[in-house]
Amino acid sequence: MSVQRTQYHCPVELAVDVIGGKWAVVILAHLKEGDLRYGELRRKVPDITEKMLTQRLRELTEAGLIERTEHETAPPGVSYKLVADDLRPVLQALYDWGQNRAASKGIEIVTP
Amino acid sequence: MSVQRTQYHCPVELAVDVIGGKWAVVILAHLKEGDLRYGELRRKVPDITEKMLTQRLRELTEAGLIERTEHETAPPGVSYKLVADDLRPVLQALYDWGQNRAASKGIEIVTP
Repeated sequence: MSVQRTQYHCPVELAVDVIGGKWAVVILAHLKEGDLRYGELRRKVPDITEKMLTQRLRELTEAGLIERTEHETAPPGVSYKLVADDLRPVLQALYDWGQNRAASKGIEIVTP
Repeated sequence: MSVQRTQYHCPVELAVDVIGGKWAVVILAHLKEGDLRYGELRRKVPDITEKMLTQRLRELTEAGLIERTEHETAPPGVSYKLVADDLRPVLQALYDWGQNRAASKGIEIVTP
């Protein structure tokens, strides 16, 4: 994520730079379905390391795409919310395409 | 691009694995606008190295997303065409989002 650049040659390049690589998009796609606690995200994205997940969440928060809320529960918890509503059509299009591709290629989608 | 996997936890993860990182998506977005010769692509994506461009084009061709045509002109030429029409909504959504983000953040899009 190089949010510092002030010039791009193509809007799609900017989009990919901001919403980032694989894990950022996957995290955003899960948050599109509703707010999630850190532990829930961890379960839904089992292949990401804890370090990477924390880092991606921080970057997405800094980019203003998601919001982090601390809950004063016992034990205290943190939840994340997608605030960039204009990302929803992007995430939906990626989801639909992935689902069609999986069906046509015999790839299984196993929801944890 | 790990097109060999037979199982994913989320359709979006599959989508990102197939359409790949930054340059693959940028290449696809340009081809969405019409077939392009290799040299034209090179000009439209000035920040990518020749090696990376060749590699991404080969991967996208192998994944069945684009088609490569050799032209028996003098000098001989190669052109590329987007054949995965179901990717068009994905690419359009990314383009629109990138353009809005650029406008709201004062980022310039300079078409080569």
